[in-house]
Amino acid sequence: MDNQELLKKLSTVNESKIVLVVADGLGGLPKEDGKTELEAAKTPNLDDLAARSICGLMDPILPGVTPGSGPAHLSLFGYDPLRYEIGRGILEVLGAGLSPGPKDLAARGNFATINTDGVIIDRRAGRITTEKNVEFCQLLDGIEIEGVKVTVAPVKEHRFAAIFQGEDLYDELTDSDPQRIGLEPLLVLPLIKEAERTAQMVNRFIDEAKRRLSEHYPANMVLFRGFAKNPQLPTFQELYQLNPSCIATYPMYRGLARLLGMELLPTGETLEAQIETLKEYFKDYDFFYLHFKKPDSKGEDGNFEGRVKDLEELDKYIPSIVELNPEVLVVTGDHSTPAKLKSHSWHPVPVLLWSKFCRQDQVTTFGETACIQGGLGRLSAIHLMPLMLANAQKLKKFGA
Amino acid sequence: MDNQELLKKLSTVNESKIVLVVADGLGGLPKEDGKTELEAAKTPNLDDLAARSICGLMDPILPGVTPGSGPAHLSLFGYDPLRYEIGRGILEVLGAGLSPGPKDLAARGNFATINTDGVIIDRRAGRITTEKNVEFCQLLDGIEIEGVKVTVAPVKEHRFAAIFQGEDLYDELTDSDPQRIGLEPLLVLPLIKEAERTAQMVNRFIDEAKRRLSEHYPANMVLFRGFAKNPQLPTFQELYQLNPSCIATYPMYRGLARLLGMELLPTGETLEAQIETLKEYFKDYDFFYLHFKKPDSKGEDGNFEGRVKDLEELDKYIPSIVELNPEVLVVTGDHSTPAKLKSHSWHPVPVLLWSKFCRQDQVTTFGETACIQGGLGRLSAIHLMPLMLANAQKLKKFGA
Repeated sequence: MDNQELLKKLSTVNESKIVLVVADGLGGLPKEDGKTELEAAKTPNLDDLAARSICGLMDPILPGVTPGSGPAHLSLFGYDPLRYEIGRGILEVLGAGLSPGPKDLAARGNFATINTDGVIIDRRAGRITTEKNVEFCQLLDGIEIEGVKVTVAPVKEHRFAAIFQGEDLYDELTDSDPQRIGLEPLLVLPLIKEAERTAQMVNRFIDEAKRRLSEHYPANMVLFRGFAKNPQLPTFQELYQLNPSCIATYPMYRGLARLLGMELLPTGETLEAQIETLKEYFKDYDFFYLHFKKPDSKGEDGNFEGRVKDLEELDKYIPSIVELNPEVLVVTGDHSTPAKLKSHSWHPVPVLLWSKFCRQDQVTTFGETACIQGGLGRLSAIHLMPLMLANAQKLKKFGA
Repeated sequence: MDNQELLKKLSTVNESKIVLVVADGLGGLPKEDGKTELEAAKTPNLDDLAARSICGLMDPILPGVTPGSGPAHLSLFGYDPLRYEIGRGILEVLGAGLSPGPKDLAARGNFATINTDGVIIDRRAGRITTEKNVEFCQLLDGIEIEGVKVTVAPVKEHRFAAIFQGEDLYDELTDSDPQRIGLEPLLVLPLIKEAERTAQMVNRFIDEAKRRLSEHYPANMVLFRGFAKNPQLPTFQELYQLNPSCIATYPMYRGLARLLGMELLPTGETLEAQIETLKEYFKDYDFFYLHFKKPDSKGEDGNFEGRVKDLEELDKYIPSIVELNPEVLVVTGDHSTPAKLKSHSWHPVPVLLWSKFCRQDQVTTFGETACIQGGLGRLSAIHLMPLMLANAQKLKKFGA
């Protein structure tokens, strides 16, 4: 029996509610004064909550391994990211609101600009507006090639998602996007023999798309990458008997949540709107995944002060969450994005878990240095989900 | 995908240099005053480095498991010691500078003394000099038995290493060394049916060796143990894309390093000579494994004060290593060898990791008690290698 089978066997339904707040890229690195972004931020509400919680530092995947958002979130949700690999294409179509079936093939698409020689001169077609994107997607949506129906849906600006629906499709394909300008788009090639027919079909679709877009400069070409089939993960319902929901604004996180069976709640672009959504739907679900994107984006920009402000913003809304009286409240990140590195990193992420039964430790501030001394110690992120379920009294005893 | 496959997939080449200092048997146990050997030692340089590093306590294999040097080092180098078992014979021949091929059988040998009844009266032939050893090895080197060619090379004093080269050799064999005096040497027996021919061949070799040594009392017999075939481990080059080197004086550690693809750098017998070697070759490699044997030997002797002195000696050379400006510097041990136990033990080992991105913790002295509070927490030694690679920015992001 593996860990996931154990959890499946032990899960049970009750009325308790769990709120998981994920501040994307929460963990950081210090500036000269020795304080990380989270430590430099004034976060009286998080500190107060930490003082009543059990704290720790979590490795998203393994010590030393820097995760992308997909694997990092899988861990947070209790899925071994080395066992379940989710192709980027699948996350993109799910985030675009499409529902790929078990046999479907998905891909990320860009509208791009080619010159009269067929050479890519802009991989993003001048970042066309989302409105234009919607219009162009309509030109491509519903094309049929060799019995395969193609669904095309807008994401944002130049980005779209595509689903290819048919029999015997394979995702062992190379990208058509060369990821740089000055080259022609690449032919999609099969990486295994069985994928030959799929590659041919996709290339024919690209030809047809190019034909239909020819009058729509700068969006006169499409580029594909991240071909992937639906990995068919077990859902939160199947594994944990939860009725879960997601309050996220970015497509990728919404996509992953949907894949795991979460209901995507309608919400706005701000944290304030997300908190309102949480309040509005609080009675309807027993698990809430609230994703706050900003600290990660600022980290990627190397913006230490911006991250400090984002975390202070998060702090402001903590009392509104506490007031809802969830049985379990967790605040953590999916990974670290230190401004110093301008990228995701391998550093472990602070976590606090509050519940009536959490066995609070002596940590009284929420930060990387303080959390080292916490009662959760340094743990793998994959253990967070069972800890949340246990604190919500949703796990039965194992064995007699 | 397992952890090692993941690292292989993520490794990338850059200019950064990693120095791993292994003080053999570093971890200890306290005397009445509550201080371990490392805590009793005056180590201002290590303390200063610890204050700028991230620290922790490492379990070599698993909590409670006392490792031999082979498995302990495998862990340090990122190889699961429960998956890869390396026979002692292989380590011995590699340490002796021999290169066993994939089909070869290796063994550790002793020159020993038997009396006229054939009974062993000294398992070490009076610890003959290494010069005598070289001479006797020449008597035995190159013997052929049943199409199997035997290579014999000196190690040190009474110890030598042997390689049997031929087809269909098996290492499922018992030792000929009874590990005590007063007995006759044992016949080598096959542990599986397929090994019968190999056992016969080895016994015939022993007879021939005894004949050739008969006039060379006290070295008038050979004893074999640790028959082992080449386990063919993936190398540091294959796994981590590193260009690694080893600065060790003892054969076993050199043997293991060679097995993993490390270049064995010529060095002297003292730590001072080893540090000189590090300086001399610093520009030529990107990974340096520096092995300091003395604290382990003194631990085995139960010599608490000797261990304290050895660790103070190590401390003296820390600034010379720091001055080389490696991107990552780690000081740790392969296991504990408390003087109190006069043997290896299961106790976790202090570790410090310094890099520009290490996220330093509040530990300000290098010792077992202090390291418990470190940012690495209590971790398995197998995670050290990915942490070193990450801090050297030699690992790409996992997933999107």
